Amino acid sequence: MGRKRKDTSGRHDHAAGNGVLTRRAILEGAFVAGAAGMGLSSARAEPLGVPPWSREPGAPFAPYGQPSHFESKVVRVAPPPANPATPGIGVTRTPHHLLDGMMTPSGLHFERSHSGVPDIDPEQHRLVIHGLVKRPLVFTMEALSRYPRVSRITFLECAGNSGALYAPQPQPLNAQAIHGLVSCSDWTGVRLSTLLDEAGVDPAAKWVLAEGADGSGMSRSIPLAKAMDDAMVCLYQNGERVRPSNGYPLRLLLPGFEGNMNVKWLRRLKLVAAPVMTKDETSKYTILLQDGKAWQFVFPMEVKSFITHPSPGLALREPGFYEISGLAWSGRGKIKSVEVSADGGASFAPAVLNEPVLPKALTRFRAAWQWDGGPVTLQSRATDDTGMMQPTRAQFAAERGLRGQYHYNAIASWRVDQQGEVHNALS
Amino acid sequence: MGRKRKDTSGRHDHAAGNGVLTRRAILEGAFVAGAAGMGLSSARAEPLGVPPWSREPGAPFAPYGQPSHFESKVVRVAPPPANPATPGIGVTRTPHHLLDGMMTPSGLHFERSHSGVPDIDPEQHRLVIHGLVKRPLVFTMEALSRYPRVSRITFLECAGNSGALYAPQPQPLNAQAIHGLVSCSDWTGVRLSTLLDEAGVDPAAKWVLAEGADGSGMSRSIPLAKAMDDAMVCLYQNGERVRPSNGYPLRLLLPGFEGNMNVKWLRRLKLVAAPVMTKDETSKYTILLQDGKAWQFVFPMEVKSFITHPSPGLALREPGFYEISGLAWSGRGKIKSVEVSADGGASFAPAVLNEPVLPKALTRFRAAWQWDGGPVTLQSRATDDTGMMQPTRAQFAAERGLRGQYHYNAIASWRVDQQGEVHNALS
Repeated sequence: MGRKRKDTSGRHDHAAGNGVLTRRAILEGAFVAGAAGMGLSSARAEPLGVPPWSREPGAPFAPYGQPSHFESKVVRVAPPPANPATPGIGVTRTPHHLLDGMMTPSGLHFERSHSGVPDIDPEQHRLVIHGLVKRPLVFTMEALSRYPRVSRITFLECAGNSGALYAPQPQPLNAQAIHGLVSCSDWTGVRLSTLLDEAGVDPAAKWVLAEGADGSGMSRSIPLAKAMDDAMVCLYQNGERVRPSNGYPLRLLLPGFEGNMNVKWLRRLKLVAAPVMTKDETSKYTILLQDGKAWQFVFPMEVKSFITHPSPGLALREPGFYEISGLAWSGRGKIKSVEVSADGGASFAPAVLNEPVLPKALTRFRAAWQWDGGPVTLQSRATDDTGMMQPTRAQFAAERGLRGQYHYNAIASWRVDQQGEVHNALS
Repeated sequence: MGRKRKDTSGRHDHAAGNGVLTRRAILEGAFVAGAAGMGLSSARAEPLGVPPWSREPGAPFAPYGQPSHFESKVVRVAPPPANPATPGIGVTRTPHHLLDGMMTPSGLHFERSHSGVPDIDPEQHRLVIHGLVKRPLVFTMEALSRYPRVSRITFLECAGNSGALYAPQPQPLNAQAIHGLVSCSDWTGVRLSTLLDEAGVDPAAKWVLAEGADGSGMSRSIPLAKAMDDAMVCLYQNGERVRPSNGYPLRLLLPGFEGNMNVKWLRRLKLVAAPVMTKDETSKYTILLQDGKAWQFVFPMEVKSFITHPSPGLALREPGFYEISGLAWSGRGKIKSVEVSADGGASFAPAVLNEPVLPKALTRFRAAWQWDGGPVTLQSRATDDTGMMQPTRAQFAAERGLRGQYHYNAIASWRVDQQGEVHNALS
């Protein structure tokens, strides 16, 4: 059809150490084209077999579809609860090593709950706006549905995501266990500014207390500037109503801010003059520094990335070509670039960013890599459009220390051994 | 916080007849701000009630989440099967009137199956590439997973979507029943050109026969130019492996082309010199014209839109402000603009397009509307970046006639009566 043939000469331009190839290699697929190919296919094409499922009618339609039973291991995983009497307190994590693309299916969106998942009747649920306002307001969910809506694809990340990398020794954990507290959805709701304008914000108001209807009364103080900027109260996630574990019937969305502030099961917003100092912003979610002091009210999640493929549990079977793929994001804006290294950070080469690259959304990156069979350390390093770049672990430790639990965003490493097994590493 | 107050004078700039307001009204939310507001909230905010779900711990975590049981009516709907003995032959439709945003949850993605949903073991499934190639190839799913991948958010639309509008009288159907055979997902897979390059396409090859592994052996002839352009073989849908009803473990994706050509359960691709004239491209999926002739091999889905809110089943309770919202798409490129009318097409005003606006993806549009309580006819009209605009029904009928079943893309209408009930209309 007149399509130009690719260069199949077998020469590959190396862009960084240990076999990281140029972006051109992945954009044009040059490293798999031509006579040699990947060498992964079998050449005995015919006669074609006729499997049993081609010999009979398949299953009838289902009102609400589910994944194949062959994928039953693709699930969220929760660590053992700290207290077996309260199994709903804790987290479950997204299995990113088994996923691809930029969207997270709602059934696999990570969870962080402080008192389990309440079973809320949307007919009875109310949103109250009160405090320093001219007109306190109470909304039914049906009334909220009448307001103009906006949709936005954005990530949510728990402040504690990647906290396992604060440990002084590398823990034997996979991408899900380390980085699984981040997910990305298409959220739809009403701009919070629309509702606050209707309530009439008193000039003395500078903060907004947001409270959930769960048993813990999860609550956080939100700067009014954020509430009036891009905050939303969401009714829909990935097209359908928000799932119970993500806040049904109403969730506060603060794009880019740490997950717990995006209060689930939202029941009230109180306009106040100063932070309320709730239990959830004093006993937790502060950043403990090396000297024992702590940063409070550090809201946006910092620029970050990690490699999903290869990663622990996805062993390399043999030397040869592999795609290095992963996710990058920033709570401050768009991802501008991601670089990958196969030599522990000694050299980096740019990865390809999968379109669309959206502000405060997960961005999939891909790079071409030729593994020579030796031990290597894989890393990714993201930069956002404010110019922030992920620090090395040493730089991160120098600024913040390693006593904390939250907002870890240093460059993460996977070590590939000579057997092709992949391990968490701290280099 | 220094934010400028909106104009709350109550003047609204009308941009088209019967209360369609300017884009500014929806972009700035001007029509809900200020003292009057929407009048939808109750002012008795305090004391706040404490509902039962706030008094106790909620449910523990689930490995794979599901929607709330309060949303059990948000399901795909299938018409009665033509033959009760073959319940897997037919369609189910996406409930767009109950959804919002641009993504469709995989569990609600429309289905079109010709012999039910096969239960395919991915370990045993193979993709064969043969015919006019230098090297016939057989791929396991694991081998395919080694290839470089791309992700793309794109719509799929059944050629028969909106076919009910060919009827000479308006059928008493809702948005799901009429327009529910279109959905939008984040698809991830391998470029088909990568695999065809490895097989080595013979210069005599001009078409590709694609065959599914279902009991019907669903098969279509694909132009080689499309196969080498943006075609993909997909392993992932919305982050996770493709659902069984959408082709698990492997689906052909031909962005913009009519749904059935995106062959599910893909088992072989045969390079051929001319179309194979399979049963699925001769007995079905041709466009019957008024004079009895038919167009064959009309592949891209034409520019189109419909209004999801309001729509039948979503009655207007009282005169006042409403958001008109809906979906637009084109199989040829990006949506450039959508206009809405509240006077049956006598006047149109531009809607706001929700970002991101992606090529060959669903695009959500929104417009502000003040209903005066009288009968009106709502319409939307999309234009794509190739300059194609949806025709009126009369223009469509003049070109193609109304004897067909497929590729209906004329402007669709909802009639709102004085009781606020919404009905399908053919104006």
